[in-house]
Amino acid sequence: MNLLIAGTIGLDDIKTPFGKVESVLGGSSIYASLAASFFGPCGLISIAGQDLPSGSTTMLQKRGIDLKGLEMSDKTFRWSGSYEFDMNEAKTLKTELNSLQGFNPKLPENYQQCKAVLLGNIDPIVQLKILDQVKGDPFLVTDTMNYWIESQPKQLRKVLARSDVVVINEGEARQLFNTPNLIVAGRELLALGPKYGIVKKGEHGALLFSEHKYFSAPGYPLAELKDPTGCGDSFAGGLIGYLTKTNDFSESNLRRAIIYGSIVASFCAEEFGTGYINNIKLNDIKERYDAIKEICKF
Amino acid sequence: MNLLIAGTIGLDDIKTPFGKVESVLGGSSIYASLAASFFGPCGLISIAGQDLPSGSTTMLQKRGIDLKGLEMSDKTFRWSGSYEFDMNEAKTLKTELNSLQGFNPKLPENYQQCKAVLLGNIDPIVQLKILDQVKGDPFLVTDTMNYWIESQPKQLRKVLARSDVVVINEGEARQLFNTPNLIVAGRELLALGPKYGIVKKGEHGALLFSEHKYFSAPGYPLAELKDPTGCGDSFAGGLIGYLTKTNDFSESNLRRAIIYGSIVASFCAEEFGTGYINNIKLNDIKERYDAIKEICKF
Repeated sequence: MNLLIAGTIGLDDIKTPFGKVESVLGGSSIYASLAASFFGPCGLISIAGQDLPSGSTTMLQKRGIDLKGLEMSDKTFRWSGSYEFDMNEAKTLKTELNSLQGFNPKLPENYQQCKAVLLGNIDPIVQLKILDQVKGDPFLVTDTMNYWIESQPKQLRKVLARSDVVVINEGEARQLFNTPNLIVAGRELLALGPKYGIVKKGEHGALLFSEHKYFSAPGYPLAELKDPTGCGDSFAGGLIGYLTKTNDFSESNLRRAIIYGSIVASFCAEEFGTGYINNIKLNDIKERYDAIKEICKF
Repeated sequence: MNLLIAGTIGLDDIKTPFGKVESVLGGSSIYASLAASFFGPCGLISIAGQDLPSGSTTMLQKRGIDLKGLEMSDKTFRWSGSYEFDMNEAKTLKTELNSLQGFNPKLPENYQQCKAVLLGNIDPIVQLKILDQVKGDPFLVTDTMNYWIESQPKQLRKVLARSDVVVINEGEARQLFNTPNLIVAGRELLALGPKYGIVKKGEHGALLFSEHKYFSAPGYPLAELKDPTGCGDSFAGGLIGYLTKTNDFSESNLRRAIIYGSIVASFCAEEFGTGYINNIKLNDIKERYDAIKEICKF
């Protein structure tokens, strides 16, 4: 298996100014692996419960997502959140950890050799347990969020130090490094050990920091967005899917991967939950890639 | 005179987390004409008082800023503002209109034929009075702010409808069109009549909207910024200075002008008030232009 994607599986209740959905399939590993699936297969590492909507596993497998690393337990993790008018930040209304509690991932035999790993947003202790079972030196992308920054700072820093790329969102970067300045935050992120730091800025795009370089990716111009849930995970999934497919982990290819990740995230935002997945093809993604080329030209 | 720049002249008290200054030369026409002066001469249209710091007019003239359109009155407009930790928005503590009150601009003979006009931030009634005295059909860039959106919506819309380019900042665009979505706001801005709309996003760069196209300019990555006062005016001044110098008012040259405007604004933010002006040369601006080319490349 060339690509592993780890993270949560959840059943989400989502409310935005444009509507609401209940108990839809979500979680960081779902959004990320679906995003990656436009570029090639991957192996999922996660845990869910018997209450998973029927058809979920078949849908994932049809998209080339290997489920040998999916543990089945009693009840799936549940998340309930809402967005205000500006859609900038989800307000978490409720979480039920359920199967996530005490999740102790075991890597299947065919997962242990791989080229790339995405540690999606999940407890850093779980991220470390996965890392310790991976053989060789795959390209490692880690995504995290403020909750772990606050509750598991030590474990999180261990993961960040071992990562090639750390992805974090704008607000969390400012919070983690206690600065309003994203350029300063990006530099501090690199000081924790990763080779690259990516700050996601939603509608404003993303910034890539490396030792001597800096890349600014524009956001794809969306006039209508319905639900930002999973956009960050889709960004990371699209990014690592593209890197793995092209088998080129250089800085210049990482720039292209960021554009692809942003585009998959832009499609994700246009529908509730993972609703976009059946409506678009790789060709739609390529069209937006060409559009972004034009958008940046001067 | 190829380029006219109109706007306020003020004496500013500025406080930011990095220090404070008192009674420094400022105002939209000052920041804009100084920014434009890197690219060539311009004629100023404004009003000030006898309390202007000595040496101010000599300094402006030395930079090629023609002062035949500067009216001298009793007391200069005063503004006092402060910025919080995040430096996003100025909090106005006090304004004294003084000479701005009843300003009735008369264009000198040698100003009436020109290639480009920047109507910097000032009462739309004054902007209209200037426009009515300009002969021919110069390229018109208009900058405005929320205060005029609220207090002079009718007059402001008359100015916007006659403009080639309207420049507005992010928060004001969202407010003016009552939408959190900048893409929607940009489209609505165009519907008011201008050929191009530019939304300034501070650290996140700027967006250019035209009928069928869209351009996203990155912000220059500043790790240290001391005082954002006048950055918007410097952006507009650098932009129109570059357009006038190159005598090319096409969409593709407007994209380059936006990058130059952003760069002059980035230098402006690194010092209090107009303090940057003597520390940089056109070559420094060109260096940042090349750096931004690299920053966008993928």
